[in-house]
Amino acid sequence: MGARAGAKLAKNISKRVSPKANSKKTRVVPIQTHALADLVSTIGYQTPNVLAATKIKAPKNKETQEYLKERLGGKGAGLVSIAKLGISVPPAFNLSTALCSVYLSKQRIPDAVIQQCHSAMTGLEKALNKKFGSAENPLLVSVRSGARISMPGMMDTILNLGLNTAVTENLAKKYPDRARFFWDCYRRLIQMFSGVVLNLDLNPFEDILADIKDKEGVRVDSELSEKAVQKVCEEYLAHIRASSKTFPQDPWEQLTLAMEAVFRSWNTDRAIHYRKLNRISDEWGTSVTVQAMVFGNLNDRSGTGVVFTRDPSTGVNKLYGEYLLNAQGEDVVAGIRTPHEIHEMKKQLPKSFVALVEALEVLEKHFNEVQDVEFTVEEEKLYILQTRSAKRTASAALEHAAQFVKEKRLNTKEALKRISYDQVKQLLHPTLKATTEKPVAKGLPASPGAVSGRVVFDPETAVLRARTGIKVILVRRETSPEDIMGMAVAEGILTATGGMTSHAAVVGRGMGKSCVVGCTELHVNEQKKFAEVRGVQIQEEDWITLNGSTGEVYLGDLPTAPVTWGETAKTFFSWADAQAKIPVLANADTPEQAKLSVGLGAQGIGLCRTEHMFFDKERIKKFRLMILTEDTEMRSSLAQELQRYQREDFIGILKEMAGLSVCVRLLDPPLHEFLPKADDLEEIRSLAVDLKVSENKLVNRIHQLHETNPMLGHRGCRLGVTFPEIYSMQVRALAESLAESLKNSWKAELKIMIPLVMNTQELAALLKTLKADFETQLQKSLKSDAGLMKAAQKFVKWGTMIELPRACVVAKDLAPLIDFFSFGTNDLTQTTLGISRDDAAKFVPTYREQGLMSSDPFETLDQEGVGRLIRMAVEEGRKANSKLEIGVCGEHGGDPESIRFFHSLQFNTVSCSPFRVPIARLAVARVEEAKKK
Amino acid sequence: MGARAGAKLAKNISKRVSPKANSKKTRVVPIQTHALADLVSTIGYQTPNVLAATKIKAPKNKETQEYLKERLGGKGAGLVSIAKLGISVPPAFNLSTALCSVYLSKQRIPDAVIQQCHSAMTGLEKALNKKFGSAENPLLVSVRSGARISMPGMMDTILNLGLNTAVTENLAKKYPDRARFFWDCYRRLIQMFSGVVLNLDLNPFEDILADIKDKEGVRVDSELSEKAVQKVCEEYLAHIRASSKTFPQDPWEQLTLAMEAVFRSWNTDRAIHYRKLNRISDEWGTSVTVQAMVFGNLNDRSGTGVVFTRDPSTGVNKLYGEYLLNAQGEDVVAGIRTPHEIHEMKKQLPKSFVALVEALEVLEKHFNEVQDVEFTVEEEKLYILQTRSAKRTASAALEHAAQFVKEKRLNTKEALKRISYDQVKQLLHPTLKATTEKPVAKGLPASPGAVSGRVVFDPETAVLRARTGIKVILVRRETSPEDIMGMAVAEGILTATGGMTSHAAVVGRGMGKSCVVGCTELHVNEQKKFAEVRGVQIQEEDWITLNGSTGEVYLGDLPTAPVTWGETAKTFFSWADAQAKIPVLANADTPEQAKLSVGLGAQGIGLCRTEHMFFDKERIKKFRLMILTEDTEMRSSLAQELQRYQREDFIGILKEMAGLSVCVRLLDPPLHEFLPKADDLEEIRSLAVDLKVSENKLVNRIHQLHETNPMLGHRGCRLGVTFPEIYSMQVRALAESLAESLKNSWKAELKIMIPLVMNTQELAALLKTLKADFETQLQKSLKSDAGLMKAAQKFVKWGTMIELPRACVVAKDLAPLIDFFSFGTNDLTQTTLGISRDDAAKFVPTYREQGLMSSDPFETLDQEGVGRLIRMAVEEGRKANSKLEIGVCGEHGGDPESIRFFHSLQFNTVSCSPFRVPIARLAVARVEEAKKK
Repeated sequence: MGARAGAKLAKNISKRVSPKANSKKTRVVPIQTHALADLVSTIGYQTPNVLAATKIKAPKNKETQEYLKERLGGKGAGLVSIAKLGISVPPAFNLSTALCSVYLSKQRIPDAVIQQCHSAMTGLEKALNKKFGSAENPLLVSVRSGARISMPGMMDTILNLGLNTAVTENLAKKYPDRARFFWDCYRRLIQMFSGVVLNLDLNPFEDILADIKDKEGVRVDSELSEKAVQKVCEEYLAHIRASSKTFPQDPWEQLTLAMEAVFRSWNTDRAIHYRKLNRISDEWGTSVTVQAMVFGNLNDRSGTGVVFTRDPSTGVNKLYGEYLLNAQGEDVVAGIRTPHEIHEMKKQLPKSFVALVEALEVLEKHFNEVQDVEFTVEEEKLYILQTRSAKRTASAALEHAAQFVKEKRLNTKEALKRISYDQVKQLLHPTLKATTEKPVAKGLPASPGAVSGRVVFDPETAVLRARTGIKVILVRRETSPEDIMGMAVAEGILTATGGMTSHAAVVGRGMGKSCVVGCTELHVNEQKKFAEVRGVQIQEEDWITLNGSTGEVYLGDLPTAPVTWGETAKTFFSWADAQAKIPVLANADTPEQAKLSVGLGAQGIGLCRTEHMFFDKERIKKFRLMILTEDTEMRSSLAQELQRYQREDFIGILKEMAGLSVCVRLLDPPLHEFLPKADDLEEIRSLAVDLKVSENKLVNRIHQLHETNPMLGHRGCRLGVTFPEIYSMQVRALAESLAESLKNSWKAELKIMIPLVMNTQELAALLKTLKADFETQLQKSLKSDAGLMKAAQKFVKWGTMIELPRACVVAKDLAPLIDFFSFGTNDLTQTTLGISRDDAAKFVPTYREQGLMSSDPFETLDQEGVGRLIRMAVEEGRKANSKLEIGVCGEHGGDPESIRFFHSLQFNTVSCSPFRVPIARLAVARVEEAKKK
Repeated sequence: MGARAGAKLAKNISKRVSPKANSKKTRVVPIQTHALADLVSTIGYQTPNVLAATKIKAPKNKETQEYLKERLGGKGAGLVSIAKLGISVPPAFNLSTALCSVYLSKQRIPDAVIQQCHSAMTGLEKALNKKFGSAENPLLVSVRSGARISMPGMMDTILNLGLNTAVTENLAKKYPDRARFFWDCYRRLIQMFSGVVLNLDLNPFEDILADIKDKEGVRVDSELSEKAVQKVCEEYLAHIRASSKTFPQDPWEQLTLAMEAVFRSWNTDRAIHYRKLNRISDEWGTSVTVQAMVFGNLNDRSGTGVVFTRDPSTGVNKLYGEYLLNAQGEDVVAGIRTPHEIHEMKKQLPKSFVALVEALEVLEKHFNEVQDVEFTVEEEKLYILQTRSAKRTASAALEHAAQFVKEKRLNTKEALKRISYDQVKQLLHPTLKATTEKPVAKGLPASPGAVSGRVVFDPETAVLRARTGIKVILVRRETSPEDIMGMAVAEGILTATGGMTSHAAVVGRGMGKSCVVGCTELHVNEQKKFAEVRGVQIQEEDWITLNGSTGEVYLGDLPTAPVTWGETAKTFFSWADAQAKIPVLANADTPEQAKLSVGLGAQGIGLCRTEHMFFDKERIKKFRLMILTEDTEMRSSLAQELQRYQREDFIGILKEMAGLSVCVRLLDPPLHEFLPKADDLEEIRSLAVDLKVSENKLVNRIHQLHETNPMLGHRGCRLGVTFPEIYSMQVRALAESLAESLKNSWKAELKIMIPLVMNTQELAALLKTLKADFETQLQKSLKSDAGLMKAAQKFVKWGTMIELPRACVVAKDLAPLIDFFSFGTNDLTQTTLGISRDDAAKFVPTYREQGLMSSDPFETLDQEGVGRLIRMAVEEGRKANSKLEIGVCGEHGGDPESIRFFHSLQFNTVSCSPFRVPIARLAVARVEEAKKK
């Protein structure tokens, strides 16, 4: 498109957007213009022509603030609240989120709305005594997006609208001491407009700026002379023309196009991806806020900053933030210049600082939550640009919740809602084990947790690698919203520039990713894919380790250790326990894990797997011999040796769990896992000698035991049937350990669980022999002490795992035989859906992307499918045995949504891996609250 | 036990069994003696003291013959029937089956019963004017077992009871011309008694006999002199004494011990195994029949034989049997001497032959079934020893049923009951393909069917090998009841000796095993495990092929071909079809299989799998490239090429199935099955060149596609989702083939089936795109001919396979989307029970042996588990879509018991592999009859 054609288009648009030009025509706009026009609201001042946001009434079923957020977006609603509190905000007007879908479907903003915008702008002009488009005293405005929920950096913003070449020239002439400032504002407008509205590549603009800086011999933008900045503007405009685009000189045309572009930015790829990731509805849409500009970059008595009312990283109750003198807000967020710590402002802008502190106090009190506030100071006058609930590290959120309870701002039940499940997960982020390694660099500790991974330098590679199961650390000069997919899959993020509120820091914290930013020693070459620090080159795929809690960066894959819980966490989760009705148990296989679980608040062990107990080198050899020998005497003597080991295992766990219950699952591996590889010649030779068989025969036997579908193979209690020695040995060891517990009055309850039961005959037959074996051994171990023998009955229960569809179907027949069911929802999901967890990665992601599965069935229980079978088993099982205890020990036992389902079926316990125990504790507490409602 | 102790024991026993000796004592026998005594029945004569069998009245709910069988055993009941018909039988008395359990629990026969035996014996003595135990004119008796159902050779028999040394000496003196005969009877008695009652190893007895034959220089037993036979008897008795046992000289003691031994023989291992194999209840017990001996080995005017009223091998309506002059019955059955064809008797014993033919006519008419009759001729007088329904080959049974219908002895519905499902299976026994190979030997064609397998020489090895999936042929000099387990697992049986009614022949036919007997050229060394024939040595594990229909034996593994159906079979199954309400379809993947299926009576194709269609070398390469390429153009051009192939596949099948329906399942393999092995370097290289990728990358991709649990992996419609080109190509080819069918008016109905559906979203998404692809292609192929396009709607249906538990659970949501469900019960069983069919062999046999599974769930549907899910899916599916058609296409579709279940749920079709179609046809007919009752 040539300049002429562009001009023509501009004229056409101008016609369309100028209400006066259209007033004579009677074009039918097929929407309810009145209703839509009502959705333009003024903020921070009032005008009779448009609706003042403070007057908006919520429908009966909604809270005002909630309704304001839906209608004005989070930012808009925030501004209204601030203004209501008497705190100065730059006056603004807002186009409701409802207009977003209207625009997206019609591809134009209705004329009636544009008319209301004119009226609102008139109000703005009156409030500030400036004029939009005036060359003498121009009102400049920003156009910002704002969804119901904050989507930081995901949508577009344009500043300084209202400037054009003529206005800028005039202002520069009239106020020579600010000429450079006006040209710089214009430069920023052109650049942003080119990116957001005209959709141009921004690299050439950066090149133009860099070239001129080079020519002028300056290092940073602010050192450029007035002339130089003017030259930048001219070259920018020339580049736009050369790209067959037009930068409109009509301020109203600028404004209309900018508002449209913001609406459009709801549907950029990165915004859509962010919504998917954060489960935000595509329907909500963004609002547009048009706000008078205030200038943090006017001079050195101006500035801009971001401040948290309390520390969002450590949780300490102290202002936390950064600001830059003589800068616009984007400079802080984008992380291009490294800003000053907020308390320095006290010296540099003392008056403004006092005003800020006062405003922050009011805001935090009003919202009753830690606030994340953007502000600008123009000639020492403070304006609050926006406020929102702070995104924080999990431990900070926890500290804040505890502080608020202490300050009597919250009760404990309310406090429980202040932590998300993802934050609980973060609380369990590992820390670095004590190490003698020296860090290779140190940056800012933007988001805590120690992680190791292989370096990648771009988000695409991060996604590809992560899909194949590789842990990656995304290393960037600085991150931008385009990096969001890569950040989501990375273990951790490392950037060379940016501060504690830079994009990487905010998003990283939000995602709970370990993150180190502003690591200035690090030189990142994203093009050539390497980084350099202190003379060390880091290549793609190299291992590095980040400590997001200290900002330290190490070369290599360093060992990490789980966090220990602070007092605050303990207190917080005790509030949850007080609410909960279902005890949370842990899946733990060793005394160490049992201890860890109790530390994390588990009230027992819901699943103690016995598979790993045999993987010790000495034991596995004996186990192998036992399976392979055909000599009955040898087999029974090996079983006795293994029994001695198991006895110690179980005693260790029961001792650790004194007073609690321990549910031990009898062996459940695919048998062949215990055999040596057929090509491990040395092992084969040694075994063959011990077995007194030929190596050939042994190899044959191993081949025989190979399985095509191990998940559906020779495992679970099938082993108990075909190799009775194994289970018999295990229950004897359990009897010995119970005897030990009784003698020592540990009062641990032992639950013995038979896995993978398929039919009644099988369960009945196993129970018969195993109970007999158990009883015999117990008699022997207690030397037939009648008192202890009687006591023992109270401390032992027998049960089965329900993990096959058939077990659900015949639950009514299984239930009378036993004391408890424990649902193994992992396997039950595998068999019900016919999906091997090991193979799911080949197609489940595609299903999720195409919306053919609403969630990963291995994370959140498939209630419609698997859940229906569980319901059948629970209802019929309880009917057949009213005393039946019911629990779950699959991973779903730690998933809040699944816990809601188990709660609805009145499960007696849930059990999950130790690190999910706190999540489950919170979930079982919240489900009680939900029930009350 | 020394000789003295033995004598003492004998005395004790003698005391116990002699009623007079006991009459003074009043020992309490804790059973109802009167009732028990009533269970001793006389047969073939009457006496006031015991119950005459002809007078026994059945309870109201039972037929007389049925009740007689239960009470007297099959043999006893048979004798009663014969006697009632006025045919002469050796008079007898019978101890009821009810006494068997009494004996087995008490370990003694109650005195009251013994008393009744005495009374019955008196009757016997009167009837024949002989005296039991008399040295002058002794009555000799046999003691035989007899269960409700014949268990040939499984239990014990003793002949010639009543002889002892004194009696024999006296008789020999009194009748010098028969002295040798008496000694030989005595010899047989001692030998049988030693084996059955005294439990002695019989080999030493054979050695004694062989030694004396050597010394006398004779070849066969009958050439031994009187003195020599007497010497044998003496040495036998000496050997018994040396073994610390006693051969009782008191005939009553002999009788009592023999009766007890027969009762005990119910519980020998081989009898238990036989019952398990034939599903005979352990509760039934055996009766004991004590019958007067008649002597086929008295002289050359005597003989013994076995005869069938019609040919049990070919079915021809002609007497079929064998006899031996001067022999006892055991000689025929044991196969030691090769007997004469029955018609030769006409010349040798003309009078007896006429009597036999008359008796056989009466018997067959009376029982209305082909009879298998044992007879003995003593001095030309014919005695019928037993009669029973003939065990036959399947084709003979079929011929006989057809003959009986023709002769108006049966109507067609009754005829349908005359064939068992196992016999239908046998009808489909393969025959040998035309071959230029010369047979290495020829024996008697004892049981038809051509089979190949690896040679084994003993039943234990047969069992071991067969368990690992190896096909074995059991080669024996002659078989005995101890071989039964080996025979059951063998593909076929080959013996060197024995006739058409030898043990191997009778049992082989009964089991439907291919069997060649009396292959006299074959020398079998069972000890050293090899055989020799015409100078060729056959070792264990060598392949041989038997043609049981001709008696020919070949070296090697010769190709076989399925039988073609004769007219009789066609007629017979048309009677079944007339009864049936559910059409039987076949699982067939090629035009050849389609043709075969129609030939076997299938009324359509219920499952056409498309997997094997790609295994052709050229096609698989294209398929591989399609999966592996990342070049979209290449992928679509490959899809087009494959579409051309598929079009031809489908057209071929639709043409073959004109007028019928064809249900095509879209591709359902584990994807990795289609990829080359990662170590097939040549293939990799060639593919890499075509794909223009590195070999490394290709190998990586192949490793990526490897699956841990292929059964639960990337298969079924999951492929349709992840590789949409494949299903799209297939439905387009199907549209083309339907177009061809419409143009040619083949009137074939096309059903398109989506496999492994798990949820509604998936099914809906696939149906949407596939129906559109199908419609587009159809329009194109029919050149938008409106008439044909309209007609097409009548000939196409869409459906899904229900083969995952989740599909059953959400059937109500799936049903409204489609026209039909087809249950894939194989996979549904695998997932519901969590058993991989490929791995089941490692534990399912143990489960079956221990009674933890009542039947193999892959053979007979698990109604309690899988069946409940099916019921849920059927009921809820039909409720949601009243027009829903329901079928089954797993192997259970050909299993009669499972068919009964599908019938109860009103399935619309069943489908099974072609060779099961006739079984299913019979089953769907019978289920209607059963319903009427």
